[in-house]
Amino acid sequence: TIIDYILKIESVEKDFYGRKIMITAGPTIEAIDPVRFITNHSSGKMGYAIAEAASKRGASVTLISGPTNLSPPSDVKLVSTSSTLDMYEAVMEHYGEQDIIIKSAAVADYRPNSTVDKKIKKQEGDLTLTLVRNPDILYELGKIKDNKVLVGFAAETDNIIEYAKEKITKKNLDLIVANDITQEGAGFGVDTNIVYLIDSGNNIKKIDKSNKTDIAHQILDKIKECL
Amino acid sequence: TIIDYILKIESVEKDFYGRKIMITAGPTIEAIDPVRFITNHSSGKMGYAIAEAASKRGASVTLISGPTNLSPPSDVKLVSTSSTLDMYEAVMEHYGEQDIIIKSAAVADYRPNSTVDKKIKKQEGDLTLTLVRNPDILYELGKIKDNKVLVGFAAETDNIIEYAKEKITKKNLDLIVANDITQEGAGFGVDTNIVYLIDSGNNIKKIDKSNKTDIAHQILDKIKECL
Repeated sequence: TIIDYILKIESVEKDFYGRKIMITAGPTIEAIDPVRFITNHSSGKMGYAIAEAASKRGASVTLISGPTNLSPPSDVKLVSTSSTLDMYEAVMEHYGEQDIIIKSAAVADYRPNSTVDKKIKKQEGDLTLTLVRNPDILYELGKIKDNKVLVGFAAETDNIIEYAKEKITKKNLDLIVANDITQEGAGFGVDTNIVYLIDSGNNIKKIDKSNKTDIAHQILDKIKECL
Repeated sequence: TIIDYILKIESVEKDFYGRKIMITAGPTIEAIDPVRFITNHSSGKMGYAIAEAASKRGASVTLISGPTNLSPPSDVKLVSTSSTLDMYEAVMEHYGEQDIIIKSAAVADYRPNSTVDKKIKKQEGDLTLTLVRNPDILYELGKIKDNKVLVGFAAETDNIIEYAKEKITKKNLDLIVANDITQEGAGFGVDTNIVYLIDSGNNIKKIDKSNKTDIAHQILDKIKECL
């Protein structure tokens, strides 16, 4: 099957031709003030790899990206966003026309309840930061899914499969890509990943440590079964 | 004077030969859990530019860096750190042997009062994050300064000069490099900066928008006056 994938990449089978795919990628950043912010360790590599693979396979790709240091793949429509609210708006703006939505971005679940426009001067003693919930983009998409294919990600440190299955049901997903970010060679920043693909019928497929391009193609193969 | 700098770079006058300089650079990151963290917009570019310039001018350079996407200059001793506490330890470990310390890192003033080792599951409603003060690295260095030259940075959004002057006194500095990060072409991420050099005698020199390498050399020129 490795040969299959190499052949697939080389020969670029256009099996997603005519399909519109929206992929979210990277972290979001939530400003505390003009200098400080809350973010997470997502590099965007997994999402960008899927965007590139889907584009090579003929899909029309919209990549909604948080701040990353990556160059967007060619032939992909890039929409740059910063906060989760930004990303939510961009996703909703482009949602209608899509056939497939893959939400690989690690969005911040919380944001500071107020952002100040001047740098906060430090003071003696503790500081309490009140965080409010951001919209749950994937949950909102699940509610209006229709016949689109909706794919989520779960980056977990414990109870991987259990949390992933809960997420499929709660967010009305067709497929979830779950990974244990505590494993060597998996998760944020690195070029490889180790994932479980779990569909809404609770079928689980484990993909052993592979580079993110290979995993991207296997995710797309699995999505084809959902179309 | 632009020609002076070009000549200086080209001919590489070794006017810092035999001097030991420690430079801190970049942001720090303060973990909330294994996924989420608090950080700031510092790219490390200003600090790395000073490290490179000082090394070219013959100094023995120790670069204590937070997480950046930059390649360290050659002939520089790089010490990679993550949190402010990490950086504090690294600075203190290398402090004794230095002649000059330039603290260009944008360290987090606060860190979460506890870091959990599993990803926090989101819940309904607000989340309160209690932040505690990090050690003030520059202030601690100021207390044990002896005859070393101590240079600080001030990245401000308002009252630039006033805050910078306060910082010189409070932290026992010889020189401060102050910049208004709200100005176009100044501050975080960009390749240029606009700064005020203010010494402990309250002499102020403004450097108009210049690339960070030029500014690095002008900072070093000013430091020479303090030696």
